[in-house]
Amino acid sequence: MTEYYLGVDLGGTNIKIGCFDSDINLVGKASVPTGAEMGPEVVVERILGGARTLLVESGVSLDDVAGVGIGTPGPANYAEGIVIKSTNMPKFKDTPLRDMIGRNGLGKPAILENDANTACWGEFAVGAGKGVSDMIFFTLGTGIGGGVVCNGDLVRGAGGNAAELGHVIVYPGGRRCNCGQRGCVEAYASANSTAARAVDAIKAGGESTLKNVLEKKGNLTSKDVYEHSDAGDPLAREITEGTAEALAILCVSMLHTTEPSTIVFSGGMIAAGDSLLERIRHHFREQIWTLKEEPVDICFATLGEDTGIIGAGALAKHAREQGKLV
Amino acid sequence: MTEYYLGVDLGGTNIKIGCFDSDINLVGKASVPTGAEMGPEVVVERILGGARTLLVESGVSLDDVAGVGIGTPGPANYAEGIVIKSTNMPKFKDTPLRDMIGRNGLGKPAILENDANTACWGEFAVGAGKGVSDMIFFTLGTGIGGGVVCNGDLVRGAGGNAAELGHVIVYPGGRRCNCGQRGCVEAYASANSTAARAVDAIKAGGESTLKNVLEKKGNLTSKDVYEHSDAGDPLAREITEGTAEALAILCVSMLHTTEPSTIVFSGGMIAAGDSLLERIRHHFREQIWTLKEEPVDICFATLGEDTGIIGAGALAKHAREQGKLV
Repeated sequence: MTEYYLGVDLGGTNIKIGCFDSDINLVGKASVPTGAEMGPEVVVERILGGARTLLVESGVSLDDVAGVGIGTPGPANYAEGIVIKSTNMPKFKDTPLRDMIGRNGLGKPAILENDANTACWGEFAVGAGKGVSDMIFFTLGTGIGGGVVCNGDLVRGAGGNAAELGHVIVYPGGRRCNCGQRGCVEAYASANSTAARAVDAIKAGGESTLKNVLEKKGNLTSKDVYEHSDAGDPLAREITEGTAEALAILCVSMLHTTEPSTIVFSGGMIAAGDSLLERIRHHFREQIWTLKEEPVDICFATLGEDTGIIGAGALAKHAREQGKLV
Repeated sequence: MTEYYLGVDLGGTNIKIGCFDSDINLVGKASVPTGAEMGPEVVVERILGGARTLLVESGVSLDDVAGVGIGTPGPANYAEGIVIKSTNMPKFKDTPLRDMIGRNGLGKPAILENDANTACWGEFAVGAGKGVSDMIFFTLGTGIGGGVVCNGDLVRGAGGNAAELGHVIVYPGGRRCNCGQRGCVEAYASANSTAARAVDAIKAGGESTLKNVLEKKGNLTSKDVYEHSDAGDPLAREITEGTAEALAILCVSMLHTTEPSTIVFSGGMIAAGDSLLERIRHHFREQIWTLKEEPVDICFATLGEDTGIIGAGALAKHAREQGKLV
């Protein structure tokens, strides 16, 4: 008998659900609007309804589902499966989401994990990190999130808040981060910060082909900056080099901390493509010690838009194998 | 029947051996000169002879010894128990030290681990980190070493080289480290670097009560710098503040990586005392984000000079409980 797993990716706008076989092959997927404004009971009903419909469409019996993984933004008490609060879902407050979906919803054991960790686990289990035992994972989006896998397991930390890798300090006393610290890698290398540094440089009098874009749109995106960098604009190039260098310094420090064999970058900004990856690798080689050749693989994530549901499904399987699915 | 463990701390000058009961209480200890210049066979004979004598003196039968832990500087293949080479013991080359002492020496299973990790494990098991599950450990000596414990286990990394925490970059493009990188925390905050920064500041024309010491001795130690700092010399104070700040930045970044509940400082430089610890805590509070109050305990190691043998003994016990003692 094949066992199946459900992976739920709960976002502020949409709920994505995937059904996976025991090798975490995608059997079927669905997406429904979250309806967060209607409160957690409605959201849970949508998840349960969506899951049941998906199982029928996928030809899988609920009896054959061995567990459910749920990825959600924090802050949450992941050990107890409780969402403490949520920026995108303001009516969620100390919501026991794991058991509402799992034991008391589908009648199945479940695990709740933060969305960066589920994405990390997806890449580790079946994506760019498949086959390794130690991996570091970064999401480059509006902010920078992370995941750390050591010896084949997620590092969760003393309070469930490990792998806040965007807030590793790379330039002490530097740019103010949204978190309140100065010099966080997120304050330099996230999509928002990459764009903000370009805006700052232009406002400080820098000459750039981005100037027209800024005047026309009133703002810049990281996409603008990468496009103009690739087209040869020196200021845009300097900004993207800064992004790559900050990320490379982070990679060096992570290598000396948990010694991953693979460092995976994911998230919207990897759309900047191979030029970004090549510049991160270049600065990594510049910064790393010369005494030994580190065989670390710096690469992009491979799972694409399904990473959230894949990671949640894979994590449910892993937790079950560890006897930690409750 | 009580089980006992032996802990061996193999240094370039002395071999220290401890005998521990199953709660890692010290039953007896011994120290013999390493005799490294005579090669690994002689060193191993001294360890075996020292261990047998210690057992007799401690009233413990070899039959009741459940395992042996061995701490040694790297580089080594710890998984296979082989010392690849050793700066302080140049005749060690691909030496299968674990089995020479363990299975083929005392006829007992053994584990080989690097000395920073054994010291870390000692503090974790029975010292400053007792009772926690996630800890970061620093040794502040000539250089800066480290250990990382996540979820109750040592983080060893993909190639056994994790926790080289002295080489986390805190000031990109800054002082050149012995490792070849720039801006490593070791290049600012080790005992040698603390002294070197003071020498540099005086040579650059800085006024200091350390100037006389430097002229008289031709050099400075970190002890000189801390003494003059505590006595109120502004230049010495600036240097020790720099040491504390670099260590605090490292603590912030480690907190966001593996989220320890305890950060332990050990090694010769903790002789600088509470003023150093207070300044690290001060700069940590200055650097950490303001959004949440991190309940992290930044403290000194408690095991003192026996930390190496205690850690080795405790690690042997842990490896046995995990079924990893071979």
